[in-house]
Amino acid sequence: MYYGAIEAGGTKFVCAVVDEDMKILETITIPTDDPNVTMTETIKFFRGHELKSIGIGTFGPVEINPNSPDYGKILNTPKLKWRNFNLYKSLKLEFDVPIKIDTDVNAAALGEYMEGYGADKRSVLYLTIGTGVGGGFAIEGKTLFGLTHPEMGHLLVRPVEGDDFAGHCPTHGNCLEGMVAGPAIEARYGIKGHELGEDHVVWDYVADYLGQALMSYNLILSPEIVLIGGGVSQQAHLFPKIRAAFKKHMNGYMDHPTLKGNLEDYIMYPKNGQKAGLIGSIYLAKQAVEESK
Amino acid sequence: MYYGAIEAGGTKFVCAVVDEDMKILETITIPTDDPNVTMTETIKFFRGHELKSIGIGTFGPVEINPNSPDYGKILNTPKLKWRNFNLYKSLKLEFDVPIKIDTDVNAAALGEYMEGYGADKRSVLYLTIGTGVGGGFAIEGKTLFGLTHPEMGHLLVRPVEGDDFAGHCPTHGNCLEGMVAGPAIEARYGIKGHELGEDHVVWDYVADYLGQALMSYNLILSPEIVLIGGGVSQQAHLFPKIRAAFKKHMNGYMDHPTLKGNLEDYIMYPKNGQKAGLIGSIYLAKQAVEESK
Repeated sequence: MYYGAIEAGGTKFVCAVVDEDMKILETITIPTDDPNVTMTETIKFFRGHELKSIGIGTFGPVEINPNSPDYGKILNTPKLKWRNFNLYKSLKLEFDVPIKIDTDVNAAALGEYMEGYGADKRSVLYLTIGTGVGGGFAIEGKTLFGLTHPEMGHLLVRPVEGDDFAGHCPTHGNCLEGMVAGPAIEARYGIKGHELGEDHVVWDYVADYLGQALMSYNLILSPEIVLIGGGVSQQAHLFPKIRAAFKKHMNGYMDHPTLKGNLEDYIMYPKNGQKAGLIGSIYLAKQAVEESK
Repeated sequence: MYYGAIEAGGTKFVCAVVDEDMKILETITIPTDDPNVTMTETIKFFRGHELKSIGIGTFGPVEINPNSPDYGKILNTPKLKWRNFNLYKSLKLEFDVPIKIDTDVNAAALGEYMEGYGADKRSVLYLTIGTGVGGGFAIEGKTLFGLTHPEMGHLLVRPVEGDDFAGHCPTHGNCLEGMVAGPAIEARYGIKGHELGEDHVVWDYVADYLGQALMSYNLILSPEIVLIGGGVSQQAHLFPKIRAAFKKHMNGYMDHPTLKGNLEDYIMYPKNGQKAGLIGSIYLAKQAVEESK
């Protein structure tokens, strides 16, 4: 009997078959196309294996409250073909096993909590900064959701002095995502961020906005570690700037020893890199079994 | 056998003896003076009763991680006599029963979760706006803490157009607390907020800053209900303004039905008013027994 895991991303589905020792036996990557096409391929991949459960970390927004009749339904995504598509039901029709669905970022937080830099921590905040900005939170092995899942990318931030960019978020203009996501950086200058060079002033702005947001996350969640993944975070030179901006904005406020140091062990690139979400999805599959008992 | 409960506030300790049906049998109010004096009175009050456990919701900052050797220690409070005073140890020396300590605002969130407007909800955000601004969060019967307890009052907010007040927070200037706490309002005009009249422009500012903060809390925690207590929240006219500001800043972003309505059932004054913290402290005492088993 095997776990099935799906990291359902906006551009690709990464699926894995995993044994009970959490060892990945086989994976496949399927483009995120029309849901019928993508799901047919996904189901075909899993068909050849005897699954005991499935875990999914998906792009959103998605209904992740297990008590909702719409559990697993993709909500008002800009990917119109996926809007109102129910991932849970689509899989449940084919595989009569426990299925657990969470956001990609909650899955990544869980992945790092179980097998990454959060393995010795009580709580993990995972951020992704790429085509959008999102955040997930795992505490004592559980991920956080409320009325909806967190939407941490849309925090309001204060415009940095000298930065007159109006922002790129269609809803909030200059919220965090509107200022630091990949498309926002590209919208400023017409070229991609990684082509701008490490000394470009935009990285000071990006780091400052992230420092502000990290302050909010810290004051509200007080995570034991912060892991930042996603395309923009591939710019390694950003990390020292983000840590410095966080420290500047906190201004000595929090007294905990971990927050007094150089923060190199507090704000980090994930141990599992791009694989954190898939690893977390495996643990969602494991939790699906435990919770079905 | 009885539960002992203490709401340890900055100006007074409210202590209660409670039976196993959660009925309050006796209470006493003791000024928050020198800790030796206050604790002597507190201990004297409880001495006459056979306690099975004690629950405490206290002012902070305070160490609430039960795995810390400093569990129950008041940290860098401006109340110098209380700095480094260990509430837990002080009581444990006298009463050899399970003792659970949390922040006053986490206790209030728990109180509303158990016996207030959160009784049918999965999670409760409780804010207090008074001499300071603080927040607590209860989810599935547990309160939130991480490296430290939440310090939600110090979120950075965007200056509202027309408001040139530099803020009153000694650490962050114009953070939320620096703009909306009672002393901040008084520092603007030299008189207390409730003397300014309901039509004063300051309430528009205060509501806007709170609306911004509520957006951050919502995007991160997505609480099922938000309850706002404390002195400043006695200004009932503020609530419609706060709801409107929250709605304006969210700008339609979150899709959940509860957030689409008029928000009168989402952002409210606590059902238990000023008693939420004491009620929560009783449930902390109950949890102390359960967790000691």
